[in-house]
Amino acid sequence: TKSYNITLLPGDGIGPEVISVAKNALQLVASLEGFNIGFEEMHVGGAALDAVGVPLPDETLNSAKKSDAILLGAIGGYKWDNNERHLRPEMALLHLRGALKVFANLRPATVLPQLVDASTLKKEVAEGVDLMVVRELTGGIYFGEPRGISTNENGQEIGFNTEVYAAYEIERIARIAFETARKRRGKLCSVDKANVLEASMLWRKTVTALASEYPDVELSHMYVDNAAMQLVRNPKQFDTIVTNNIFGDILSDEASMITGSIGMLPSASLGETGPGLFEPIHGSAPDIAGQDKANPLATVLSAAMLLKYGLGEEKAAQRIEAAVLDALNRGFRTGDIHSAGHKLVGCKEMGEEVLKSI
Amino acid sequence: TKSYNITLLPGDGIGPEVISVAKNALQLVASLEGFNIGFEEMHVGGAALDAVGVPLPDETLNSAKKSDAILLGAIGGYKWDNNERHLRPEMALLHLRGALKVFANLRPATVLPQLVDASTLKKEVAEGVDLMVVRELTGGIYFGEPRGISTNENGQEIGFNTEVYAAYEIERIARIAFETARKRRGKLCSVDKANVLEASMLWRKTVTALASEYPDVELSHMYVDNAAMQLVRNPKQFDTIVTNNIFGDILSDEASMITGSIGMLPSASLGETGPGLFEPIHGSAPDIAGQDKANPLATVLSAAMLLKYGLGEEKAAQRIEAAVLDALNRGFRTGDIHSAGHKLVGCKEMGEEVLKSI
Ligand SMILES: CC(C)[C@H](C(=O)O)[C@@H](O)C(=O)O
Ligand SMILES: CC(C)[C@H](C(=O)O)[C@@H](O)C(=O)O
Repeated sequence: TKSYNITLLPGDGIGPEVISVAKNALQLVASLEGFNIGFEEMHVGGAALDAVGVPLPDETLNSAKKSDAILLGAIGGYKWDNNERHLRPEMALLHLRGALKVFANLRPATVLPQLVDASTLKKEVAEGVDLMVVRELTGGIYFGEPRGISTNENGQEIGFNTEVYAAYEIERIARIAFETARKRRGKLCSVDKANVLEASMLWRKTVTALASEYPDVELSHMYVDNAAMQLVRNPKQFDTIVTNNIFGDILSDEASMITGSIGMLPSASLGETGPGLFEPIHGSAPDIAGQDKANPLATVLSAAMLLKYGLGEEKAAQRIEAAVLDALNRGFRTGDIHSAGHKLVGCKEMGEEVLKSI
Repeated sequence: TKSYNITLLPGDGIGPEVISVAKNALQLVASLEGFNIGFEEMHVGGAALDAVGVPLPDETLNSAKKSDAILLGAIGGYKWDNNERHLRPEMALLHLRGALKVFANLRPATVLPQLVDASTLKKEVAEGVDLMVVRELTGGIYFGEPRGISTNENGQEIGFNTEVYAAYEIERIARIAFETARKRRGKLCSVDKANVLEASMLWRKTVTALASEYPDVELSHMYVDNAAMQLVRNPKQFDTIVTNNIFGDILSDEASMITGSIGMLPSASLGETGPGLFEPIHGSAPDIAGQDKANPLATVLSAAMLLKYGLGEEKAAQRIEAAVLDALNRGFRTGDIHSAGHKLVGCKEMGEEVLKSI
């Protein structure tokens, strides 16, 4: 029988609670589908700072690198908010992404019929939204050099960063996006600021040059300011969006809020080879941590992405996705997605209902 | 009697139609308030490209520099979309901003009770939204050097831009923002990405250092990805937002779409001295240009901002603002903001109704 190693990184805040639910779901589908999963649980973020003084300990990175896939809970909290930059919990995320070379961040934003009321958008605008943001994750202004704070020739303090993309970085993320669009509704919108930025001009040129290899995908281009508007005006116009690291950070968060159910949204970060990193898009929610109030479904759905994209266990992934929908259909809701007429449950109970549905 | 010179830049698409309405409104309030306005009308953008081959002719820039204020219609259109970068209509805007040193871009996003249904957000989320984005307009990645497209040591094509802020640039825009917040509801939210970017760390440090000079203003900080979410989740939490050039481009467009009535929103771009640049935030809408369908109110309200911020003629500005509300209250709507039970009018007729209301 096949056997996989998964590194679990519960992290901070509600991370441990939601990871524990997802772990149970993974174990159950593995036994049903006839494969084995070994788990290695490691510190990351604030938890790692508290334990060993750095946000990403070597043992954690080594375990992640050796694994078949990584499932992360959440990172950060008030406690470490005033740390110096290199001692901040979020640095673990940036280092992990860079070290694992997971350049492709897939962030679906889907409005489930069961949860359409959770959106702040009008029902007719929100219902049926089903889009995927493909964000470049290991380049651009997040990693570009030179960067820093220094003093210029006039004795003024300046802060600077470099937005930079090489053609191959754009090409590889664009390919992932074309292939993603192909498996979805065949529409790809590339978002840039090519009317102002040279980095975006190269982005647009490189993406455009690939289009002939994907004749079944309809490619369009949009400026980032317009994209931020169109997501509010008519999010249904989008199928797959591809964009750079910083624009992707902003637009994928905006898109996820449009669904109204951030507690439901998973993400996958993939490289060319090596293990992928899977995590819910919500944060560590320190205000409700340890109170059994968190919504574990985003992490459970991240585990489904892990099975599909990370291990190629498509059937096991589908089992989990179906179980999440079934638990919702049976009326169970955590506080963040609760509305009248539904059964309010905590994190653990939601997890048990998902297991029953599996 | 006082006398002012205003440079009118109708520009492209619907620009000439909406400028003509705003000019009439300016003339009328000037005569009522007892001052004179002389107008000089100049080419800009695509119109200038067609007339003299460059997007910002010297005569246009000279007229603008000599004026007391500049009122611009709209710039751009399909016709020039494939021009090289330096021959694109939008370049006129970037050059004007740089040459006039108008570093402070004020972009209000207000949901009028008369138009709350135009928003794609639920009524209870949209109603009462009244925020102001203060965007830095002459620095950051829009103007930062080095920039370009070149080949790196591996023979790979790279595109690069520089996000850079000097402390004085941050300080002067922050002061405008603190003062703006002080005249509003006393809340200022500074938006950055200080958990990743050094330019943002200097931004946050500099804004924070000024807070003690404005004890009556409540300062908070938010990451840009979170701000993009919070604008959708609960836009009413914001009073004044201050942010850099590129984040401001994205967030101000998102905020304006949240109101649902982009045809209503004005903007002002101000420097330390010299004339300000006033323009509606909507584009040139080439699809409806010349059909008398455009909504002139954003330009009329930009003329009001011109009177208030550009000429210090506060009473004349209030006359215009009141007239716009009155025309709406009397039921007149252009197509973009029309709904059942209201009188559908064209650009000209809306202009006449505003004049009547004045
Ligand atoms: C925590 C932060 C560094 C991170 C990012 O900006 O990428 C987060 O916002 C995300 O989107 O995963
Ligand atoms: C046209 C473009 C260069 C401009 C900008 O990005 O500043 C526009 O989007 C704006 O916001 O005025």
